[in-house]
Amino acid sequence: MAREATPATEPLRVVGRAIPRHDARDKVEARTLYAADWQMPGMLHGAVLRSAYPSARIRRLDVSRAAALPGVAAVLTARDVPRNVLWTDVPGQTSEVGPLRARLVLLADGVVRYQGEPVALVAAETPEVAQRAVEAIDVEYEPLPGVFDPAAALAPGAPRVHEEGNLLARWQIRCGDVERALERADVVIDTTYRCQMVDHAYLEPEAGVAWVDADGVLTIRASTQVIEHFRDVAEVLGVPHNRVRVIAPYVGGGFGGKEDVTVEVFLGLLAWRTRRPVRMVWSRQESLLARAKRHPFVLRYRTGAARDGTLVAQRIELLGDAGAYAYLSALVLLYATVTACGPYRVPNAEVQARVAYTNNPPTSAMRGFGAMQMVLGYESQMDQLARRLGLDPVEVRARNALHKGDRLPVGQQIETRVAVIEAARRAWAGLGPRVAPRTPHHRVGRGLACNIQPYGRIVWLHDWASAWVGIEMDGSVVVRAGVPDIGGGQASALCQIASEVLGVEPAQVAIHIADSALTPLAGTTTATRQLYMSGNAVLAAARELRARVLEVAARLLEAPPGRVELREGAAVAPDGRRVALAQVMKECARLGVPRSHLGVYHAPAGDPVDLARGGRVFPDYTFGAHAVEVEVDTETGAVAVLRHVACHDVGRAINPQSVEGQIQGGAAMGLGYGLLEEVVVEAGVNLTTSLGTYLVPTALDLPDVEPVILESGDGKGPFGARGIGEPPVGPPAAAVANAIEDATGVRITELPITPERVARALGLLESPAPGRA
Amino acid sequence: MAREATPATEPLRVVGRAIPRHDARDKVEARTLYAADWQMPGMLHGAVLRSAYPSARIRRLDVSRAAALPGVAAVLTARDVPRNVLWTDVPGQTSEVGPLRARLVLLADGVVRYQGEPVALVAAETPEVAQRAVEAIDVEYEPLPGVFDPAAALAPGAPRVHEEGNLLARWQIRCGDVERALERADVVIDTTYRCQMVDHAYLEPEAGVAWVDADGVLTIRASTQVIEHFRDVAEVLGVPHNRVRVIAPYVGGGFGGKEDVTVEVFLGLLAWRTRRPVRMVWSRQESLLARAKRHPFVLRYRTGAARDGTLVAQRIELLGDAGAYAYLSALVLLYATVTACGPYRVPNAEVQARVAYTNNPPTSAMRGFGAMQMVLGYESQMDQLARRLGLDPVEVRARNALHKGDRLPVGQQIETRVAVIEAARRAWAGLGPRVAPRTPHHRVGRGLACNIQPYGRIVWLHDWASAWVGIEMDGSVVVRAGVPDIGGGQASALCQIASEVLGVEPAQVAIHIADSALTPLAGTTTATRQLYMSGNAVLAAARELRARVLEVAARLLEAPPGRVELREGAAVAPDGRRVALAQVMKECARLGVPRSHLGVYHAPAGDPVDLARGGRVFPDYTFGAHAVEVEVDTETGAVAVLRHVACHDVGRAINPQSVEGQIQGGAAMGLGYGLLEEVVVEAGVNLTTSLGTYLVPTALDLPDVEPVILESGDGKGPFGARGIGEPPVGPPAAAVANAIEDATGVRITELPITPERVARALGLLESPAPGRA
Repeated sequence: MAREATPATEPLRVVGRAIPRHDARDKVEARTLYAADWQMPGMLHGAVLRSAYPSARIRRLDVSRAAALPGVAAVLTARDVPRNVLWTDVPGQTSEVGPLRARLVLLADGVVRYQGEPVALVAAETPEVAQRAVEAIDVEYEPLPGVFDPAAALAPGAPRVHEEGNLLARWQIRCGDVERALERADVVIDTTYRCQMVDHAYLEPEAGVAWVDADGVLTIRASTQVIEHFRDVAEVLGVPHNRVRVIAPYVGGGFGGKEDVTVEVFLGLLAWRTRRPVRMVWSRQESLLARAKRHPFVLRYRTGAARDGTLVAQRIELLGDAGAYAYLSALVLLYATVTACGPYRVPNAEVQARVAYTNNPPTSAMRGFGAMQMVLGYESQMDQLARRLGLDPVEVRARNALHKGDRLPVGQQIETRVAVIEAARRAWAGLGPRVAPRTPHHRVGRGLACNIQPYGRIVWLHDWASAWVGIEMDGSVVVRAGVPDIGGGQASALCQIASEVLGVEPAQVAIHIADSALTPLAGTTTATRQLYMSGNAVLAAARELRARVLEVAARLLEAPPGRVELREGAAVAPDGRRVALAQVMKECARLGVPRSHLGVYHAPAGDPVDLARGGRVFPDYTFGAHAVEVEVDTETGAVAVLRHVACHDVGRAINPQSVEGQIQGGAAMGLGYGLLEEVVVEAGVNLTTSLGTYLVPTALDLPDVEPVILESGDGKGPFGARGIGEPPVGPPAAAVANAIEDATGVRITELPITPERVARALGLLESPAPGRA
Repeated sequence: MAREATPATEPLRVVGRAIPRHDARDKVEARTLYAADWQMPGMLHGAVLRSAYPSARIRRLDVSRAAALPGVAAVLTARDVPRNVLWTDVPGQTSEVGPLRARLVLLADGVVRYQGEPVALVAAETPEVAQRAVEAIDVEYEPLPGVFDPAAALAPGAPRVHEEGNLLARWQIRCGDVERALERADVVIDTTYRCQMVDHAYLEPEAGVAWVDADGVLTIRASTQVIEHFRDVAEVLGVPHNRVRVIAPYVGGGFGGKEDVTVEVFLGLLAWRTRRPVRMVWSRQESLLARAKRHPFVLRYRTGAARDGTLVAQRIELLGDAGAYAYLSALVLLYATVTACGPYRVPNAEVQARVAYTNNPPTSAMRGFGAMQMVLGYESQMDQLARRLGLDPVEVRARNALHKGDRLPVGQQIETRVAVIEAARRAWAGLGPRVAPRTPHHRVGRGLACNIQPYGRIVWLHDWASAWVGIEMDGSVVVRAGVPDIGGGQASALCQIASEVLGVEPAQVAIHIADSALTPLAGTTTATRQLYMSGNAVLAAARELRARVLEVAARLLEAPPGRVELREGAAVAPDGRRVALAQVMKECARLGVPRSHLGVYHAPAGDPVDLARGGRVFPDYTFGAHAVEVEVDTETGAVAVLRHVACHDVGRAINPQSVEGQIQGGAAMGLGYGLLEEVVVEAGVNLTTSLGTYLVPTALDLPDVEPVILESGDGKGPFGARGIGEPPVGPPAAAVANAIEDATGVRITELPITPERVARALGLLESPAPGRA
């Protein structure tokens, strides 16, 4: 039970190799059995009746016509759910943290609070019959006044989304004397930014199959980032936790959208009721309509600096839209609050953050998780400051950058090396020679954005992960870990770590993941935590196993204990004599020496603190910087990203190929966020429920993002690694906004940066845009 | 890692309760997903081409016509099998024991050695197409002379089944001076007994589904007693062991017939080749035709005794028929050899055992495993002795019974209490008042038979089992163990043990079993070993976990450590204050105290010994006795068992309901063996390939067997339990034979005791019976 990772001392043989993931080939050849591909004998098909209104009372709900249809096995409403309210702490955690709790209603009980809210469930012999049954449910709604904007929701007299009021959560941080520092600053930049609601838009929508197994255990094989939802399903059904098992097959994209329960509970309810296997696959329309989205924020930044560019104060006000239910809003807001000042020293800082209920679709976890939205704020401010003071964008950041030992405004001391300025220089230099505008009405500009993103969960959660590593009789290695692999190469990285420690080739390692009943629990694949947490657990298990095996091998080799090493599938003595690992395993079997070990890693833990008084919140942070070169068409407002260099300090790249994939994928997602994507909701009605209206960037919309890997070697993960799952999604939008100002002189403060918004900023459009802008 | 079980000191709350098994209800309501019930998307169907001849050369084998049929995905012959020869130690074991190794050919390579031997494999889109493809394979056989009797096989000049000769294995035991003791004995009984080949005739034939999972692991979900066959499949495919995973769903009967590989390797070959899921289900005909059977033995017993009934010497010659391949014959023969003298002290003993290859169907493991066949020998001898000396059948046994501390002829000292005579008295008394014959031509008689059967595997194998026990956040308990549950309540017993130790109700325990990649390996469900081995592993894990939990609970309760106990789902202080287990779990989570433990149990181990010199062979033995009352129709030879009382010392009955089930089921199987069942093979041709010709007793053929449980408390399993899986199958045949002699005065020495054989013995038939008799 290592509480801290041990830095590597041995030379690395496998860690650091760029190798294809073991799951890649099956995916390319379409053999992977995703959640929806599973079949069971006698399987029913589930469907959800969803609210047509964003705010209404349910006057009448009559399922008798639906239930009577031939082929319908069950129709469930709120009254059929043993516990229709799910109280959740942070998904997957075993420690309770009161201020982060959320209350979810599973099936609408008398009232609907957003369009698409689940009202009833159906299980039927075919998907078509299920759909017909959904349509045959008689619901009579009485529309109620709604509230669709968080500011309006907090105004006196606003309709209440929930009885307890519309303020869902607030956090605040205060350090120093912001008021006075702002007064004395040489320059103050005061800007309000708006970032929009977006969707995860994963390739694989929410899906799964559930069945009750012979041992009486409800088994749910679903596309999820959190196999620990078995507890939630058990609570809803009112059965002991051990009666539910969640298995996550390889996931076709999660991005936080599969962190909360999606199909799991509904599948559980239907399978438990019918005692038959049930499959549920949400359509793209359902997914876009009703799944929790990324929080839109309104951010007001007031930044004060000295003439030389040194930051002296920052006051930040943040208002977020939680939509109709709590989900993870309190937690998202916390990430935003803690990282609001970016990777910079700000001696006097104040953050006031609130998130309010509205009758919009709920918002919750999405890659970057509150911290990513703030980059637009702090990095736009930084560039405006540089411009106002005539400073180089890299230099103004270098002057203020955090260093190891510095404290964040929340009071947490940074314990590892901060290479953010090295990243900025690498990214900036990586842009190469400036290209010339194509036409006189094109402008080319460059922008930079740095960021800070936590990896690992809030220390209040006492986070831990476990893994079980064994060596088979033939010397091949097996890793078992509860990690869902959501496409980030989570599983392969663990194989590479085991391979490194046990001296076998990566192809000699097999891994079994994400079975809540059978794999040691590893916690959620969220929060950029799996390489850090499960990586350390695998490292601990493999090292303990190696020590045990080497002892037996040393006896076989009659070599001094401690001088024998494992490599190339053998134990090797200092004089080069070797004995195959298979032979050592036979000796272990003969001696009764266990050939496997269950390892646990505990992250640094701490009790919840009052942020305003400050203290440690996260285990550590990843830093990075993106530089972009954009071309703006000053006749149309169209923006094209010509170059994009993305540099992150990953501490140690376990598999550089995977790291590059994460950086490129994150940057692409960040560019979609910056330029294209928006869930458009008008008076609670979602206008973007197809990929024809919700615009995800295609390959043709994107530049060839150049990933640059920095390895400070100083992270808290295995071999000094840091997490890289979320960080790359943060900088692109701000970098593009900064580049547009560099190109055109106009500052865009609202996302996405559509041609229309740019055109308006350039004065090309007279009339105001529709909607909130 | 306890090397010996700790006897229970605390009062038992759950152990000893007769409760329904957790898997019972689903089975009764037909919801259990047996191996053949599994479905996979895109699944192919496998079929086997089997040899039509018992001994032939394959002149030509042409699969081109079959392979070209539409819908055929693969046709495989010996040349397609990477390693067509499987060298096995004892299935599932990790320690190698040379004298027990066996060599199996998977697909016939140029020669077929028995009728039904697999020659080729097919995978096709439907079962019908697969069958057509099997029929479209062109094979040209050249019949060869065969040998169909083990004695003939060992005669000079016999056709050789294998090049190395027809003697597969021999064992011998010698203690004292048998020659001299027999000469000096007051009475010598010299009889030759014959017992037949029988089939396991389980409800569920051999079946399974295999697929290659996303992680590149070949997964085989099959009806098997041995998930450790993953190693065999890997060896055959030439892939690392970690690339194969075997899952055993609840099995519809094993009885040893699913101890060797059946469908696993064939499924593996087809799925690995096609990279598609493949299902294979053997028909009843295939199962009866070609699956390995119980060994027929010819047993010559020469037993010498003093006038008072004290045994002075026994010389035993045993010849077994192994059929065409080795399988587990050497091991079966070893069990027969070690137990040949029964539960009696024999100061001068000699056992000469041989088993020979023939061109009959192979024989291998079946419930009782060599030891059960011997009961007919030693118990018929005992009754003949009693009759000759005018002694009571119980008393003659009492005079000779083994006691704790005595040695078997092989030299092993019995370490636990031997309650065999108590069992005999209980069984004998249990028959109650003698019934009168129904008609003048009916005779009623009573017979007794005791037995000795090892539980646990040969100590040479360094046997071990592991289990992983955890407590969920709500205080419910999860057990994970590699145990296949073959219908004997293996899984439920483990739940009951965990329930006892952790102070929760059995319904609060869930169990996950039999997944070679994910459940801790527990070894085979054979050899009456799972309650003993996995029971001790679960006990060790649960006790360690309890100790850890009690420490945390004591702090919460501010109670003296060591005085707190777990009961009713809570930790209870001496003064009655209690804290719910769920609350203790939260505290464990906060403190980082692991809520699960991986326990290991190592059986007593020893290196292989020369039996003739003697030593320990098994961990321990179970003893029992059956008494029957039969009615013989002296006009037809028909035998009806009127009463049957079966008593075994199980040490401690973990679940009396399960123990009674094992005793009743075993007695029923023993009666089928004694009275009805026979695989009739003539010149290598199996004449009993349907349940119309192979006669399994129905409920109407059987008496209401009365089980009597003895609990000496002195076994080596958890809480002093002994194994009871195999023992009850041993005594019935001998008890019936003894009762027939009691009723009619004639001694039947050959099984099954058909009306024809009885009639012949009674002199009702003039002509000799057909076949070997």
